[in-house]
Amino acid sequence: MDNPYDLTHKTPTKKDFLDTSDFDQSEIIDIIKVSTATRDYLKSGETLDTLFHRNLAMIFEQKSTRTRVSFEVGMEQLGGHALNLAPGAIQLGAHETIGDTAKVLSRMCDMIMARVDRHESVLELAAESTVPVINGMSDYNHPTQEIGDIITILDHLPEGKPWNKTKVVFVGDCTQVCASLMMITTKLGMNFIQYGPPAKWLSDDFLKIGRANVQQYGGSVHVTDNPAYLEGADFIYTDVWYGFYDKETPKDVYMREFYPKYQVNDELLALTMNPNVKFMHCLPATRGEEVTDSVLDGPHSVAWDEAENRLTAQRGLLLYFGGKAQETLDIIRTERDKDHA
Amino acid sequence: MDNPYDLTHKTPTKKDFLDTSDFDQSEIIDIIKVSTATRDYLKSGETLDTLFHRNLAMIFEQKSTRTRVSFEVGMEQLGGHALNLAPGAIQLGAHETIGDTAKVLSRMCDMIMARVDRHESVLELAAESTVPVINGMSDYNHPTQEIGDIITILDHLPEGKPWNKTKVVFVGDCTQVCASLMMITTKLGMNFIQYGPPAKWLSDDFLKIGRANVQQYGGSVHVTDNPAYLEGADFIYTDVWYGFYDKETPKDVYMREFYPKYQVNDELLALTMNPNVKFMHCLPATRGEEVTDSVLDGPHSVAWDEAENRLTAQRGLLLYFGGKAQETLDIIRTERDKDHA
Amino acid sequence: MDNPYDLTHKTPTKKDFLDTSDFDQSEIIDIIKVSTATRDYLKSGETLDTLFHRNLAMIFEQKSTRTRVSFEVGMEQLGGHALNLAPGAIQLGAHETIGDTAKVLSRMCDMIMARVDRHESVLELAAESTVPVINGMSDYNHPTQEIGDIITILDHLPEGKPWNKTKVVFVGDCTQVCASLMMITTKLGMNFIQYGPPAKWLSDDFLKIGRANVQQYGGSVHVTDNPAYLEGADFIYTDVWYGFYDKETPKDVYMREFYPKYQVNDELLALTMNPNVKFMHCLPATRGEEVTDSVLDGPHSVAWDEAENRLTAQRGLLLYFGGKAQETLDIIRTERDKDHA
Repeated sequence: MDNPYDLTHKTPTKKDFLDTSDFDQSEIIDIIKVSTATRDYLKSGETLDTLFHRNLAMIFEQKSTRTRVSFEVGMEQLGGHALNLAPGAIQLGAHETIGDTAKVLSRMCDMIMARVDRHESVLELAAESTVPVINGMSDYNHPTQEIGDIITILDHLPEGKPWNKTKVVFVGDCTQVCASLMMITTKLGMNFIQYGPPAKWLSDDFLKIGRANVQQYGGSVHVTDNPAYLEGADFIYTDVWYGFYDKETPKDVYMREFYPKYQVNDELLALTMNPNVKFMHCLPATRGEEVTDSVLDGPHSVAWDEAENRLTAQRGLLLYFGGKAQETLDIIRTERDKDHA
Repeated sequence: MDNPYDLTHKTPTKKDFLDTSDFDQSEIIDIIKVSTATRDYLKSGETLDTLFHRNLAMIFEQKSTRTRVSFEVGMEQLGGHALNLAPGAIQLGAHETIGDTAKVLSRMCDMIMARVDRHESVLELAAESTVPVINGMSDYNHPTQEIGDIITILDHLPEGKPWNKTKVVFVGDCTQVCASLMMITTKLGMNFIQYGPPAKWLSDDFLKIGRANVQQYGGSVHVTDNPAYLEGADFIYTDVWYGFYDKETPKDVYMREFYPKYQVNDELLALTMNPNVKFMHCLPATRGEEVTDSVLDGPHSVAWDEAENRLTAQRGLLLYFGGKAQETLDIIRTERDKDHA
Repeated sequence: MDNPYDLTHKTPTKKDFLDTSDFDQSEIIDIIKVSTATRDYLKSGETLDTLFHRNLAMIFEQKSTRTRVSFEVGMEQLGGHALNLAPGAIQLGAHETIGDTAKVLSRMCDMIMARVDRHESVLELAAESTVPVINGMSDYNHPTQEIGDIITILDHLPEGKPWNKTKVVFVGDCTQVCASLMMITTKLGMNFIQYGPPAKWLSDDFLKIGRANVQQYGGSVHVTDNPAYLEGADFIYTDVWYGFYDKETPKDVYMREFYPKYQVNDELLALTMNPNVKFMHCLPATRGEEVTDSVLDGPHSVAWDEAENRLTAQRGLLLYFGGKAQETLDIIRTERDKDHA
C-alpha cells in the first residue's frame, strides 16, 4: 500500500457488501486502506464526523455481541447513529415481505446492516433496498469478519515477509468463518489450508471460489487432515466446533469428530515449527474444546487484536459504502501533512 | 399555507399529543408546516440541531418498526437522542403504577413517546408526566400516523384541486388507522368514506367526531358498502384485515368478511374512474389479502412516500411539542433568505 | 465542600466503581462534587461534551428502568453514547467466559456498566477489563444508588444541621439497597438505623463494614425492631418487601413479616416527631405495601428528587471514572467566573 490515502476506486463499484467475492483485490485493498487509516487517526486522539447524522439500521435475526457493538460504536465514532433492531424486533418476512421492510428502511435510514438466518434474506434485502446493505453474517459467510481478519493478518505479518507468502491454517470445522477466511486470504494471494476431518472440509462450491482466486492472484488453497501441513504456518485460526449457528451439533458428536486431534493447544502450535506463529479466533471461544487457555491467553494469541479489528473493519466499511471513504482519507492526509509541516 | 415559516400558535396549546381531536385545524396546520419545512430543509443537505441534547423515552408495549425507526432517526437528525424501551423493558403498570413511571421518566428525559395496549395507559402517562407525551398508537387511534398521512395526501393532491375538495376512501376494516384517517381528513375539511362490510363500519362514537369536524370545517363523512361511492376518489387507503392489534381475528373469518369485495386490486381502483387515483397503506401489508402486488407496487401507490412521511411527521411533532417549532422555522427562513439574496 | 470545583484526588485511585467500601470519604466527596456541579451547570442551560465520542457498554442481566435511562441519558448529555446490551443480548458466562467478554468490550468501548445477578460477575468483569467497570447493582450492593441517595440527603439536609448529625432510618427488609444506604451514610459519618424484624436485619458482615466506618468517620449504626428509634429521624427510607431480586418471597410470607408494623404511613412518620422528616424510596414502589400513597405523594416525599439524582450520580460517576472530572469542573469554574466577572 504505497499510497495509503488514495483509493483506486473513489466510489464503491457495488452498492452493497454481501460477499467479498463480489469485489476484486484492489477494492478489498481500498476497504483495508480506509479502515486502517481511520483506526490509526482515531487512536492518535483525533475525531472524525464524516458520517454526521447518518443512520444505520442494524437488523439482528441472531444474537450478536461483537458485530452489534462494533457497528454501533463505529457509527458513533464517525458522527452517526446505529439503531439496534434486536432479534424479534423485526421478523424478516413475517408480517411483511423482506422487500417491503427494505423499502421502508430505505426511506428512513442511510444504510442497513443485517445478521440473518439465511443468506437469501440478506440478498433480498439488498435487492429491494435503495440504500447500501452490509451482510453482518449469514449461514453462508461472514464478510465483515473477513475484513477485520485480513487487517489482523496484515498487522501481524512476519517481519519482511510479503503478504502473498503468508500461510494461514484454519483448524477445525468448515463454519462460515472458515469459508470466509479462505475467501479473503486467497483474494489477497495468500496460502490457505483447512486442517480438519474430511467430513468437515469446505465444500467444492467454496473451494471453487478459492481456486479461482488462486488462479487470479496466486497463493494456494488446500483441505487436509494431515498435520504435516501445519509446518510453516504463520497463522493458526480456529472457531467453535458446534457447526453452523442454526443447526448446532450435540457436544458428544462434535467432540468425537474433533477432539483431541483438532484442538489448538501448545502441541498443535509446535507442529508449525514457527516460534512466531500467531493464533486467531473469531470468538466466542469454548475454552478447553477447540482451544486451550494456554493458547488463547498465551503469547501467540492475537485474538483480542482481532476482536478490536472488527471495529476497525466496520468503520472502514461504513465509510466506504457510505460514500465517504476518499473524503475521510483526504481529511486524514491533510491533518498528517500539517503535523509533518 | 401562504406563509410556510410562521406558526399561528407559536407554542403548543397542549402539552401532549394524544389525539388530533384535541387540536383545531390551525394547530394541525402548524404541525404540518414545521414537518414539511424541516423535511425540505434536511433534504436540501442542510442540518439542524434544535433538539441538541434532548432525550426522548420511547415506550413500546407492542412491537414496532416504522414508529420506532422514525422516532429514533427523527431525534438523531435534530441533534437529540431516543431511548428504546422495548416491549418487556418497562411493563406499564406492572411493577409500579403508570403514574410513577411517568414521574420518574419526567425527571430524566425531555419527552415521552408511548405505543400502548390500551388508550387509558397513554392518557395516564400524560396526566402524571411533567414532560410532553406523544401517543405512538393505542387501541383507539394512531395520531402520528395521521400527521404523516395528511402530509402524504397534501403532497399528492390532484393538480389544482383545493384540499377541501379531496375525496379519501378507506377500504376495509375499521382499525384504529381507519378511525384516525377519518379524524384527520375531516379535520382538514376533506370528504371521507369508509367502504367496508356494515359489521366493520366505524362506530357511532367515531362518526360523531367526524360529523362535528364536517360541521366546523366542511367536507363530509360516510360509511358504506356500496362500491358506487368509490367513484371520484382521489385516494384509496387500506389496512390489514385482521382487526385491532390486540385481538386478532382468525384468517378464515376475516377472509369471509372482506374477500374478494374489499381487496384493493386493479379492478377496485378502476371503480374510482380516476386515472390519477393514489393508493395508500399504513403498512405492514399482507400482499394478496387486502391489497395486490400490482397495486402496492404499481404506479398509483404512494405507500413508500407515506412510510417516509412517518419520519417527516415525527420530526415535526418532536419540534412542535418540544417547543422548538418556531425557532426551527426561523432558522430555515434565514437560510432560505440567504440563498435567495 | 468549601471548594466545589477542586477534587482532592485529581484522578480516580481505582479503575472501577464496584463498592463504595473501596473508597475513602474524600473520594466519595469528590464524586459528589463533580455530580452536583455538573447537575447545576446543565440545569442552568449550559451544555458539556467532556465525554465526546466515548462509548459506554451497559450490560443488563436484570431488567432496569432507572439505571438504564439514567446512564443512557447521562452519557448523551455529556457528548457520548451508551449501548444497551439488554437481558439476553449478552449472557455473561454462557457462550464465553465473563473474562473474554470483558476483554472484547474493552477493545471496543471506553467504559462498562453492568447490572448482574451475582456480585462475582461484576468482580470478574472488572478484573479482566482494561476499561473502567461500574457496578449497576448486584445481589450484594447498589453503589450508584448510594451516590444518588447521598446527594439527595445532602440536598435535603435539615437547615443548619451538619451532615454528620443526620439520622437516616431504613424501614423494612435488608435488601441490597438497605445495605448500600448503611454503607454510604456511615461513610459520611451519619447515624444509620435499620428498623425491621430481627430475621431481616443486616448481616454481621454488613454491620462490620458500618462499624468500621463509624470508627473512622463518627456517626453510628444500629438495627432494631423498636419503634422508639424512629424519633428524631431526618430521613425515612424504604424499599419493597419481596427480598433480594433473584429470590423473590411469596406475598403472603412477606406481608406476615412486615405488615402493618413496617409500612411507612402517616402514623410511622409521626413517630419520628420531626415535622420536616423526609421520605425516600429507591423505587419502584408497591403502593399499599411498604409505603402508602399519602406518604409517597405527600409533602415529606423526596422520592422523585431521589430518582432524578440517579442521573445526577451517573453523570458524576461517568466523568470521575472516565478521567474527566477535574477537566469538567475546570470548565464549569471558568464559565462561572465569567458570569460573575
